[in-house]
Parts: sequence; structure tokens; C-alpha cells
Amino acid sequence: MEVENLSLNHIALVVEDLHEALVFWGEQLGLPAAGVVQTIHDEGVDIAFLQIGAARLELIQPRDQESGVARFLAKRGPGLHHLCLEVPDLDAKLGELAAQGIELINESPRERQGRRYAFVHPASSGGVLLELYERH
Amino acid sequence: MEVENLSLNHIALVVEDLHEALVFWGEQLGLPAAGVVQTIHDEGVDIAFLQIGAARLELIQPRDQESGVARFLAKRGPGLHHLCLEVPDLDAKLGELAAQGIELINESPRERQGRRYAFVHPASSGGVLLELYERH
Repeated sequence: MEVENLSLNHIALVVEDLHEALVFWGEQLGLPAAGVVQTIHDEGVDIAFLQIGAARLELIQPRDQESGVARFLAKRGPGLHHLCLEVPDLDAKLGELAAQGIELINESPRERQGRRYAFVHPASSGGVLLELYERH
Repeated sequence: MEVENLSLNHIALVVEDLHEALVFWGEQLGLPAAGVVQTIHDEGVDIAFLQIGAARLELIQPRDQESGVARFLAKRGPGLHHLCLEVPDLDAKLGELAAQGIELINESPRERQGRRYAFVHPASSGGVLLELYERH
């Protein structure tokens, strides 16, 4: 396969307390904020982004006990949650991956706030939940 | 605290099979190789790096059952293992963090192959094993 222009969009952490996490990663460690805290109601989470070089660190705190993130936190504790890479053409990439037998959570792209994305199943990516964004 | 020039050096994954991981992340997903597979004998691991934008993805496979990485794999399964950020002055950063009550695994920098590094304890960084490199 020829080398493609894959880049890192963000690294996501699940946290127990978003305020405490912002104190550590932002104030104490020194990563600058990248936008404001947001509530994603349909996913039951509060999120914040910090800038980390050319990419971002996403902090995710579940707002209830029922979301996928809440179940992850209950099962594994706080820590690294997923990686998100950007690809130039998401439909093409998903097609290539599926043709190679890679298990996808989303076989076709979903869309949020104008951003097209899909998740690869951790069973195919060595236990890592992998999100793919289509580059703007 | 003023904004500092923190950047991402690498994201590390613990894997069960380095060859399989290189097939997925390299051949199938398309991340280019960044160097050759190396054995780190005193840590009991084989590692490989792939390029991921301006940063790198480190794949770590334990060679025995006794290393810290092997215990991590046995306890948590394969997946995200640690993050590594670069700072301009590692001694200064470790001093600042310690003064703020952050628990460090290495209170003073260690060195490997000319690279100065230290680990922050996951108890202080929300469950994330965080490595700090001093920028060359």
C-alpha cells in the first residue's frame, strides 16, 4: 500500500472529574486550552480539548452511568480511551479496511457538527478504540 | 502558569504480537515505519515505531512474563499503554510538578541512548502513564 497522509487529530482520555483533569493537564502540566467545555447530551458526556503540539488531548467525563464511556470507566478505570486519526477520504479508507477483513464499528461514516467520522473495532486494532476523521 | 512549548513525541501501545500490530497499523492502516524493530533487553521488550503526523506510534511487545509491560498486558489486555510529551527543560518541569504535589515515578531524569526522560505516576495523571522527554 502506498504511504498515505494520515495525521493525528486527538488522543482521548476518560476522566472521573473534568475539573481535576483540566487542573492537571492544563494548569499544572501546561497544555493550552483548545476551546471551551462542552456537553454532548446524546452521548451523556462532558468534554474539553487541550492543545498538544499539532494535535489535541480530549478529556471525557461521563454525566451518567449508562453511556459507553461510563461503562468503560467502571470497567477499566480512568485513562486512555481512544485515538483519532485523520484521513483524506473516509469512504475510501473504510472500504479498504473492510476489504482487508478489518472489523468496523461504523461501516459507513457518521456525521456530527459537519465532521464525518467512523470507529474501527478494537478487536481489529489490538485493543485500541480507533476513530477515523475525514480531514476538512 | 504561562503556556509552554509542550509537544507530543509518541503514543505507546502494548501489543500481543508485534508482527500482527505492524500489519494492522502499518500495512493495512497505512502509517509509515519510523525505524526498525528493536529489542530492549533490559526492559524485556521488542519495540517498533510508526510515524503518525508529527509524532510517532510506539508498539511494544513483551518478550517475557516479568517485565512491567508484560504485567500490564496480563492485567489489562492489549491497548494504549502510555503517552510521551516533550518539554524544553526536563529538570525544571519535574521540579515544578513535584512542587505542586504531582507524584513522579522518576524524581530526577533517567537517560537512555542520549535521551533524558522521566515518568509521572498515573495516580497524579488520571490513570494515564505519562512519560516526559527532554527535547533535543
